[in-house]
Amino acid sequence: MTKPLIIALDAMGGDFGPEIVVSAASLALAQLGQGVRFQFYGREDHIRKHLNADQALLAASEVIHTDKIISSDERPSIALRNGKDSSMRLAIDAVKDGRADAVVSAGNTGALMATAKMVLKCLPGISRPAIASVFPTRSGDIVMLDLGANVSCDAEILTQFAVLGAVYARVVKGVPTPTVGLLNIGSEDIKGHDEVRAAAAILSSIKFPGRYHGFVEGDDIPKGEVDVVVTDGFTGNVAIKVAEGVSEFITHMMKDAFKSSLLAKLGALLAYGALKRMKKRLDPRVYNGGMFLGLNGICVKSHGGMNAFGFSSAILVAANLVRNDYNRRVAQEIEQVMNQESFFSAVAAGQGGNSA
Amino acid sequence: MTKPLIIALDAMGGDFGPEIVVSAASLALAQLGQGVRFQFYGREDHIRKHLNADQALLAASEVIHTDKIISSDERPSIALRNGKDSSMRLAIDAVKDGRADAVVSAGNTGALMATAKMVLKCLPGISRPAIASVFPTRSGDIVMLDLGANVSCDAEILTQFAVLGAVYARVVKGVPTPTVGLLNIGSEDIKGHDEVRAAAAILSSIKFPGRYHGFVEGDDIPKGEVDVVVTDGFTGNVAIKVAEGVSEFITHMMKDAFKSSLLAKLGALLAYGALKRMKKRLDPRVYNGGMFLGLNGICVKSHGGMNAFGFSSAILVAANLVRNDYNRRVAQEIEQVMNQESFFSAVAAGQGGNSA
Repeated sequence: MTKPLIIALDAMGGDFGPEIVVSAASLALAQLGQGVRFQFYGREDHIRKHLNADQALLAASEVIHTDKIISSDERPSIALRNGKDSSMRLAIDAVKDGRADAVVSAGNTGALMATAKMVLKCLPGISRPAIASVFPTRSGDIVMLDLGANVSCDAEILTQFAVLGAVYARVVKGVPTPTVGLLNIGSEDIKGHDEVRAAAAILSSIKFPGRYHGFVEGDDIPKGEVDVVVTDGFTGNVAIKVAEGVSEFITHMMKDAFKSSLLAKLGALLAYGALKRMKKRLDPRVYNGGMFLGLNGICVKSHGGMNAFGFSSAILVAANLVRNDYNRRVAQEIEQVMNQESFFSAVAAGQGGNSA
Repeated sequence: MTKPLIIALDAMGGDFGPEIVVSAASLALAQLGQGVRFQFYGREDHIRKHLNADQALLAASEVIHTDKIISSDERPSIALRNGKDSSMRLAIDAVKDGRADAVVSAGNTGALMATAKMVLKCLPGISRPAIASVFPTRSGDIVMLDLGANVSCDAEILTQFAVLGAVYARVVKGVPTPTVGLLNIGSEDIKGHDEVRAAAAILSSIKFPGRYHGFVEGDDIPKGEVDVVVTDGFTGNVAIKVAEGVSEFITHMMKDAFKSSLLAKLGALLAYGALKRMKKRLDPRVYNGGMFLGLNGICVKSHGGMNAFGFSSAILVAANLVRNDYNRRVAQEIEQVMNQESFFSAVAAGQGGNSA
């Protein structure tokens, strides 16, 4: 008998109550099958109210009561100081203590990242965790990081992110040699700021579990030009939010267009099946799950406004990371990268360039 | 009789020949009416071949011959050194010498910016020019800058961009008190890097020809949350290219969806009128024209791959800036901003904060 997969759920995070988290676990259980167990952290009475109605889930679950909740507008520093017995903190503690394999929360991103960083710490060889997510593109799904954990990143950190992303593409998405691009404002060597140019120099000279493609521009992301897009958390956060916003704007306009006349309404009705397939392909709920990569423990953030289906996607993302042994693979690969002579000399050369 | 509006056209820039530039001028002439004159810079035989077929345009045009062309992959530094007699440089020189009111080119952006900066210089009170453009949003068109001229920008430069954008929204778009947002990765005061926080402090404390709205995030751009979005050239360039890429991706998927079955095809046929109106609303050719704001002369960059209609939009953008006396208004407003005691103290406080 294999060891069960245990997922700690912060039942109180997000814009909703534990109802959504319990329903999400139920959907995830159906997908993941036997061998998965859930720990619900939060107000036991609220959780039980929904959990008791689902016998299969109940049999696979444990409830750990706490009254304390980190609110969605809590500052990360306050959450760290006062959040010791919060549902979020207890769920992360379970991963740290080896009582759970992964934690999923829809709570406050800043508090979750700060707490996960403090409690779980970074993997050896990783200086900072990154937020990564998967996106649909013309050429299939790609992964992008950092999406907001680090406002600025030096070349060495961008290189670590490249390894984090490439290992994800390889072990979770099954791409044997993932291509990695650095997000920049032009493809020529002279473009961009010092950090991105120095990172390009390192990635061009080292061996890592992917192939360095070169610089990519904003429009290369939805084209799916590379399997992994690496950037700092400021640029990545703006990029992903612009993508979401534009997607919503066009969908909105399309709806308006189809409502604008009787003929258009009839047209929409006839094209309904095709439009529905298209909508499914772009469904943000399917792509829900901000992975906190680089930590010594699996932690996934669900969007706070998601419904049960969206939250269950985040649970599946966490389960995939655990089942593919993502963290152990990263630790191996990053050690190999750091042992390369070419890594040291490229980092040293880049630092010389930066300070010049 | 009013003074004619004279527009210098780099007839050799872009992925096409002078044919497109001549056709574009013809379209622009029809829009702008009498009182506009064009100068075509480039190979006279090529230009005349197309120009001679259009009597109305011919009567409003002058051709200045040069064999020299700056190629689309020329490095800006090389273009500056060797481009003295190029069509791009001669067209910019005409604005500098007062022989033309504005220059429009579809040539190499880096070379155009470097040359325009060197030849025209910045307006008094402006340290760096910015590339600005207009975008469609849910709440009408907005303007965003910088889209790539400056990889990094300090708080004072971001403040100047806010003034450049606000004056544009007021005098060209006719918004009496434009709202200005700083692009960031969260709306709270503590979010982002030093430069954007220091710029927020300055904009909150000064009087300028707009109203400071606060931080905006990536998805606020297509929502049209503010009239003017201010950011550094790295982030702005990524943001606009992501928006273009996502828009293309969705349009592409929509086409595929409508082709996927006979019913869907019939649906598309019925909704044709509505979809066409939607397409028109998002037509990138209408929004073509990267304005180089902050220079002592009007310079507009057309996208290199545009057809005549797209290039004519860039000419109309240039004409609008001239006819609304944009540069004189900026010079007045920036002087007023810089004369404020609150501007000095906010800049000084921000610099103290940055170096701490």
